Amino acid sequence: MTLSYTLAATDGGARAGMLHTAHGEVPTPVFMPVGTAGTVKAMTADAVRSTGARIVLGNTYHLMLRPGAERVGRLGGLHKFMDWHGPILTDSGGFQVMSLSALRKMDKDGVTFQSHIDGSKHRLTPERSIEIQHLLDADITMSFDECTPYPATHEQAAKSMRLSMDWAARGRRAFVERPGYGLFGIVQGSTYADLRAESAAALIGIGFEGYAVGGLAVGEGQEAMFSTLDFTTPLLPTDKPRYLMGVGTPDDIIGAVARGIDMFDCVIPTRSGRMGRAYTSRGVLNMRNARHAEDPSPLDPECDCPACTNHSRAYIHHLIKAEEMLGPMLLTWHNIRYYQRLMARLREAILAGRFAEEAAAIRAGWSTPA
Amino acid sequence: MTLSYTLAATDGGARAGMLHTAHGEVPTPVFMPVGTAGTVKAMTADAVRSTGARIVLGNTYHLMLRPGAERVGRLGGLHKFMDWHGPILTDSGGFQVMSLSALRKMDKDGVTFQSHIDGSKHRLTPERSIEIQHLLDADITMSFDECTPYPATHEQAAKSMRLSMDWAARGRRAFVERPGYGLFGIVQGSTYADLRAESAAALIGIGFEGYAVGGLAVGEGQEAMFSTLDFTTPLLPTDKPRYLMGVGTPDDIIGAVARGIDMFDCVIPTRSGRMGRAYTSRGVLNMRNARHAEDPSPLDPECDCPACTNHSRAYIHHLIKAEEMLGPMLLTWHNIRYYQRLMARLREAILAGRFAEEAAAIRAGWSTPA
Repeated sequence: MTLSYTLAATDGGARAGMLHTAHGEVPTPVFMPVGTAGTVKAMTADAVRSTGARIVLGNTYHLMLRPGAERVGRLGGLHKFMDWHGPILTDSGGFQVMSLSALRKMDKDGVTFQSHIDGSKHRLTPERSIEIQHLLDADITMSFDECTPYPATHEQAAKSMRLSMDWAARGRRAFVERPGYGLFGIVQGSTYADLRAESAAALIGIGFEGYAVGGLAVGEGQEAMFSTLDFTTPLLPTDKPRYLMGVGTPDDIIGAVARGIDMFDCVIPTRSGRMGRAYTSRGVLNMRNARHAEDPSPLDPECDCPACTNHSRAYIHHLIKAEEMLGPMLLTWHNIRYYQRLMARLREAILAGRFAEEAAAIRAGWSTPA
Repeated sequence: MTLSYTLAATDGGARAGMLHTAHGEVPTPVFMPVGTAGTVKAMTADAVRSTGARIVLGNTYHLMLRPGAERVGRLGGLHKFMDWHGPILTDSGGFQVMSLSALRKMDKDGVTFQSHIDGSKHRLTPERSIEIQHLLDADITMSFDECTPYPATHEQAAKSMRLSMDWAARGRRAFVERPGYGLFGIVQGSTYADLRAESAAALIGIGFEGYAVGGLAVGEGQEAMFSTLDFTTPLLPTDKPRYLMGVGTPDDIIGAVARGIDMFDCVIPTRSGRMGRAYTSRGVLNMRNARHAEDPSPLDPECDCPACTNHSRAYIHHLIKAEEMLGPMLLTWHNIRYYQRLMARLREAILAGRFAEEAAAIRAGWSTPA
């Protein structure tokens, strides 16, 4: 049987469930730390596991360029390569070709581009993207699509979405089914309800193991993102997981869970950690700030990560000021743990039928002075 | 009782013993990882402990400038600040004032200098150095001295050494005795046997809990270093620990242990790790080298660190090429574990009376192709 999803409970629009994959089960709603180039930046795989993370994301674009998908395949796949033995989701490469590569040229069949690392020429098509993700041994393969830029006219968004739907069908044919593995389709259509409906119907017609909402978190703002979800998630099958790509802040995630999203990934906790920012139950702390210089209290009194258990804000402030690698290491660890605790708390609340109250309590904490 | 040392066994010139400090016992010979600015770079304190390290070094110069000794004192001392609950040795700051600071001006009473961080003006004297190390709560305080540059004429070396002996006496008077804490004197005199003898006699006359050999590993080369040790260590009391400052490669350490040294510190394992180099039972590997790109074997088949247990050379090569922080993290961890395993192996061999054979076996391994 391919990858599957069991819905355990709903509370309003929010859902709690379980993903069943080749490399283990994943309780949802879930946040997937981003392991761009075969590593969640600044963390060992053991540390990532210790945060409670059950699934991580890998980037096809980065891995195809370095060390190369065939090489990862020969070395036994991405799980073995990066010592992550739980499930892995890989993106299709499409988004990063558009945001990172040089001299890209798109045609109806795919994209030709130059590597941002060494200028070498590469080509991605729906079939090649699926093949790369197979070589990486991704539990969840994403359809190759064009992430429609924002803003886009209705005509641009329609044209882009229809190309992605064609590519989704080609990807489905190229995908090699294996037990516990699955392929997700990606709903496009920008902020246009009719296009999202057309896209969802097209994908459901093809049939996927899960459905992602793409083309959001690209500058449209939280209000437009939430209103797009309001008319998009009801279009999706209830017996399949729903994944909101590239989202987001804790507040974004709570709002999207309320609107029926099960899966998230975002570089915010890792990138913020490297920039000296900590997500806490009392809001976001900028650890460069001099007010932390002699503060003996932990980042977050509610957190059980090593940064909070073993160290003061004063120490972490010192590490960031001194540009010591341990600063980003501890803040990344803390932020990923914060995100995992947030998701566990949301899931429990959904199971207990008190999601709205819990969401309100979490948001109230952010306004309490740290 | 102040910090003490028990000699357990000798084998030729090599010694195995035990340091008894306020924060625990330390089997010798011992390698102390360098925690410059309150962190062993790229490692959590938990990770440092897991390597078997029992004592770490902190740098007075770095910590006095940032975050400041008084601040570390108010926060409960360096152990608490950096989450290191074992013994800590701090250097006196003298060496790094000379190598790192700007506009330094030395007089008979001490050194005035500008911070390399922000240009602020500071002054170190023997008394202030001891006071800073007390504020940091160092188990082992080092005498403030001038590290004689190399090469130095006999006259220069004599003048520099005699100034350091004057400062050592002043430091001894300033040092506040506490149970399990101790002050070490530093033998100077460059490569001149008569000056080393004069310096050792002066320090023994003052009386210290341990004796360091300073002014080596500053460009004189291994042969001159070893010959200086040959006539210096016999001058030192057998019932006190001997510390060779800033040394060195595994080969340097084996040679110095053979000549009666008990304690070592060096940035080589940490700095090399950040540069992509791995110390192994088969010699040093440059992990940037393309020959590792598809090698599924571990860095060192004899090693039990996480880098060797969980990852291939191919993965570590990838991390270094991709400039991922995890590369330096894993290589630092491995190198510190390699140094700890080396020291444990030397100690066991001394206790078993087969130091020379073991040293030969270790050195033979380095010539075996990796």
